[in-house]
Amino acid sequence: MRKSLEPSHDPAAYAFAHRLRTRFAETDAMGIIHHAAYLAYLEEARVAYLRDLGHPYGEVRTGGLDIAVLEVFVRYHRPLHFDEEVEVRLMAGGVTRTTFQIAYLLTVGDEMRANAVTVHGCVDGRGRAARLPLWVGEIFGG
Amino acid sequence: MRKSLEPSHDPAAYAFAHRLRTRFAETDAMGIIHHAAYLAYLEEARVAYLRDLGHPYGEVRTGGLDIAVLEVFVRYHRPLHFDEEVEVRLMAGGVTRTTFQIAYLLTVGDEMRANAVTVHGCVDGRGRAARLPLWVGEIFGG
Amino acid sequence: MRKSLEPSHDPAAYAFAHRLRTRFAETDAMGIIHHAAYLAYLEEARVAYLRDLGHPYGEVRTGGLDIAVLEVFVRYHRPLHFDEEVEVRLMAGGVTRTTFQIAYLLTVGDEMRANAVTVHGCVDGRGRAARLPLWVGEIFGG
Amino acid sequence: MRKSLEPSHDPAAYAFAHRLRTRFAETDAMGIIHHAAYLAYLEEARVAYLRDLGHPYGEVRTGGLDIAVLEVFVRYHRPLHFDEEVEVRLMAGGVTRTTFQIAYLLTVGDEMRANAVTVHGCVDGRGRAARLPLWVGEIFGG
Repeated sequence: MRKSLEPSHDPAAYAFAHRLRTRFAETDAMGIIHHAAYLAYLEEARVAYLRDLGHPYGEVRTGGLDIAVLEVFVRYHRPLHFDEEVEVRLMAGGVTRTTFQIAYLLTVGDEMRANAVTVHGCVDGRGRAARLPLWVGEIFGG
Repeated sequence: MRKSLEPSHDPAAYAFAHRLRTRFAETDAMGIIHHAAYLAYLEEARVAYLRDLGHPYGEVRTGGLDIAVLEVFVRYHRPLHFDEEVEVRLMAGGVTRTTFQIAYLLTVGDEMRANAVTVHGCVDGRGRAARLPLWVGEIFGG
Repeated sequence: MRKSLEPSHDPAAYAFAHRLRTRFAETDAMGIIHHAAYLAYLEEARVAYLRDLGHPYGEVRTGGLDIAVLEVFVRYHRPLHFDEEVEVRLMAGGVTRTTFQIAYLLTVGDEMRANAVTVHGCVDGRGRAARLPLWVGEIFGG
Repeated sequence: MRKSLEPSHDPAAYAFAHRLRTRFAETDAMGIIHHAAYLAYLEEARVAYLRDLGHPYGEVRTGGLDIAVLEVFVRYHRPLHFDEEVEVRLMAGGVTRTTFQIAYLLTVGDEMRANAVTVHGCVDGRGRAARLPLWVGEIFGG
């Protein structure tokens, strides 16, 4: 287990916030958002963050690198419901030569709904682990 | 609209049957299987059919062709529920030089739940329409 | 088949437009947005339209009615790709005592990507067909 | 973080195995199975396990309880690809008065592809935490 970041419960600790609205297609028969949908929310927030940083994921990919997901950890505090507006805050850290981590806080209004951490590594066109691009260390490191 | 097949309500009219079990992740807050999940069921049945015919989709794809979905039509008669075993029957037809169609009947026990038709065309590695492989006409035409 | 609406290719023919961005989770191994994801896009646009009309779907549901999907028809003209901004235009019509239809046009910039029609009916808490609420006829009917 | 189980890499350490085949709809533009799809695989395996134990999830739910997901942890070792047959092994443990945990090993042939742990709690019809049913402690507890 590589996860080392601990996701803060304090919204002010995060570098970026992305807002999305839950979909009916993401609900389940318990009447809440299915737990797997959160992974798409985290990903959508990561993509928005990279775009905001000037490194859109599409460009990263056409540069011959892919950012693979190595680990995912989600803690579900209170359920999300259909048609709620969710604030997904995130911050990066835990940078090594080949991996970095992102911590997340999901809130609706003032209410915490979930925390998460994802661990990522770069892979080349053949799926082999590759060193991170320089900008990752510059922006997410130290 | 290219769809010309009319999906029969008679199970005996179909060439192949694939059985699957609905997942909890596919339910929605109405307590039934979400209507979008059916498209994955149709696709899973197509893949099983191609494998059964000796033309697994993975081989079709490594041969440089992809089978694109051009049209989808689904009629939902009665809902599917969590953990039901669904029989997806299918038959091919409507073959032209560049397209073919598949009709589907979804049943649980003796009960019809849905019908569907999908229209397909081949595309090459750059996404351009391509002639169908010979075996498609040989097997589906006729 | 109840579908009677014909989705116009003219953006000006539509009553409402909803913008969304495709997700990486919605791509497939052909490098395009998987065809099943479009159904979630149509639904998201319907929900936004109902909200805009002052009849949010959440309220419709707590009023004891659900809006079921009876038929879906999608025509895929050109693929959608990851991280594209899609305009989903829609208009309602084809109102009967128990069903109504919605036609859709999906564009990216000036380029048509897909058309669709969905047919809907109301069901009560036990899943039985119910008459449409008055506002549906008033707003969507001729 | 409640997760305390450590998923073994040894297939023999697991109590139950469920086999499934990856779907094309679950692939992404990296040409592999999208990481969110694994959560549906874990859930499908849990449902199969409960059925095998004589406590089908549908009955648990009609008994007025739902089994909520409190935490999810997945480690992706090597990617899954389209049309692979995956063995999802699982074992339960970490039982407290209100929670239990399940550890998973995903393999294709002899090759480990992923590990996972999920933490669960029971909730009543109003979404409040409830004591676990007796059989959970009897079967999963020490």
